[in-house]
Amino acid sequence: MTNIKDLAKIARVSVTTVSRVLNNHPYVSEEKRMAVLKAIKDTNYNKNINAVHLSKGKTLMIGVVLPYSDHPYFSLLLKGIANEALKNNYKLVLFQTDYLEQREMEALEMLKQKQIDSVIICSRASDWKTIEEHLSFGKIVVCENMTERHVSSTYVDHYKTFLEALEFLFSKGYEKIGYCIGRKTGSNSLARECAYRDFMNKHNLSYTAEYIIDDCLYFEDGEKVMKKIRGMVEPPEALLVTSDQVAAGIVTYCHNNHIAIPDELAIIGFDNEPIAKLMNITTIHIPLEDMGKSLFLQAVSKERTNNEVMIKLIERGTA
Amino acid sequence: MTNIKDLAKIARVSVTTVSRVLNNHPYVSEEKRMAVLKAIKDTNYNKNINAVHLSKGKTLMIGVVLPYSDHPYFSLLLKGIANEALKNNYKLVLFQTDYLEQREMEALEMLKQKQIDSVIICSRASDWKTIEEHLSFGKIVVCENMTERHVSSTYVDHYKTFLEALEFLFSKGYEKIGYCIGRKTGSNSLARECAYRDFMNKHNLSYTAEYIIDDCLYFEDGEKVMKKIRGMVEPPEALLVTSDQVAAGIVTYCHNNHIAIPDELAIIGFDNEPIAKLMNITTIHIPLEDMGKSLFLQAVSKERTNNEVMIKLIERGTA
Repeated sequence: MTNIKDLAKIARVSVTTVSRVLNNHPYVSEEKRMAVLKAIKDTNYNKNINAVHLSKGKTLMIGVVLPYSDHPYFSLLLKGIANEALKNNYKLVLFQTDYLEQREMEALEMLKQKQIDSVIICSRASDWKTIEEHLSFGKIVVCENMTERHVSSTYVDHYKTFLEALEFLFSKGYEKIGYCIGRKTGSNSLARECAYRDFMNKHNLSYTAEYIIDDCLYFEDGEKVMKKIRGMVEPPEALLVTSDQVAAGIVTYCHNNHIAIPDELAIIGFDNEPIAKLMNITTIHIPLEDMGKSLFLQAVSKERTNNEVMIKLIERGTA
Repeated sequence: MTNIKDLAKIARVSVTTVSRVLNNHPYVSEEKRMAVLKAIKDTNYNKNINAVHLSKGKTLMIGVVLPYSDHPYFSLLLKGIANEALKNNYKLVLFQTDYLEQREMEALEMLKQKQIDSVIICSRASDWKTIEEHLSFGKIVVCENMTERHVSSTYVDHYKTFLEALEFLFSKGYEKIGYCIGRKTGSNSLARECAYRDFMNKHNLSYTAEYIIDDCLYFEDGEKVMKKIRGMVEPPEALLVTSDQVAAGIVTYCHNNHIAIPDELAIIGFDNEPIAKLMNITTIHIPLEDMGKSLFLQAVSKERTNNEVMIKLIERGTA
């Protein structure tokens, strides 16, 4: 394979000059530049970027860790990250983890081995200690409230958000309120449970464990939720559903089975996806694309910042 | 930074031995292995994978080119690719292109510069010549019928599929048939248009240009389609809709506006997403995750293969 020395020999210039031409450095005479370009063409030389990275210590690649790339929540985050990455000439390395810690480790391992410059963790299964051990190897950015840790983060305050939605339902007269989430573990869901308990205590409402339904991610999970609820002796009158996809599935099931919304069951979705608008679902607007943009910018910034993203309850027909 | 020679010196072994330990080669005495591992630990040495790649000529990274990572069609393809990549210890570099040729070029450029081993092109804006010029730099796999070109491909025969769906509608008595697509250019859509024209000619039906509606990708586009149709003097009686998302948007709009399906308008969706099942939409099943798996396996295989994927019309309530 032709290397930079061969090029210098063929073009009859110094190695420094070849290097300057390869890196678009201005201080090269036009004559020498042409000679180098001709040598590059004649030898079919390709600058080996791995070698360039090796010398510069930068890869211009960012790892993105997310559990499911086909879920609208994560694919909108990813879209925001990807658009900003392209603008800034960065590439993304995708780690679709299915919440397997081992797959998250692969991203951290790549960071450690300098194959990527930073890691954006959209959601994780690993405990914080594992992440923390890799902080010295490069930038790690998370999508959860981490203001007390030494990382950058872009996040929604899920405690505050849940409390706001619960109080909204309470103000409308609902007291038997349940909620649907993706998984019970995870720092976001722990914040939600905390808000739920605090809300229940504040209003002297009784905590019903079966009102918390997990494993709710996709449209088709809406049917599963409704079958559970219909099997309850004392079903909830209202549900917070942390994904518009699932909320849409619930609304569709209720429609097909003549369950009146919101009279028999009130629904508040999350994310404000287009499907929520079209199905007239009351929801919490979360600016996912903007969050993705922010996560990317934090991943390439030297500063450490924590951006809380503002949410908004959008009242429509289901609550 | 510590390099492999430093490690050899510290551990008092040969460079070859250090290299063997780093690569888990079996022929190293336990004593020497321990010495090298101790040196690695003491110097906080991280094997620089960029350097390893440089010597092996392999990156274990595959580029994936797709226009939108947030569209269910592409996110399901991506899921199939990503799951198989993880099984095989490969990483994915994501190129979300918005159908900009320049962004597709970035992937081809990375292939040329040996930063990735292969490129999977799920859909493209660039013409074939551009792709062809990069075939010598590494494996390129496409998701379109390319049996006559020198690439591997996994594809649906969109001509055959469209014809089957059109004949199905014709057998049910529909003659004024339109269709909705993402974009009019692109080899898949050209195959569809060809099938549409052949079908029209065969049955002596008149070709109506306004029955072909493009820019249809998301749920919310269903509303746009219906507004166009309601503005037509002679609207179509049936629609092939090349995305279940859009089909679901159309069905929702019709439901909200008291347009009877299939009596006033018959609908056939594409992909067989969960939303099609729940909304009882007649659709064409396309095994997108399996296609993703096949694309990945082709990307890492030395052989050149062309896999036609079999589709299936699933009759439900909308046609």
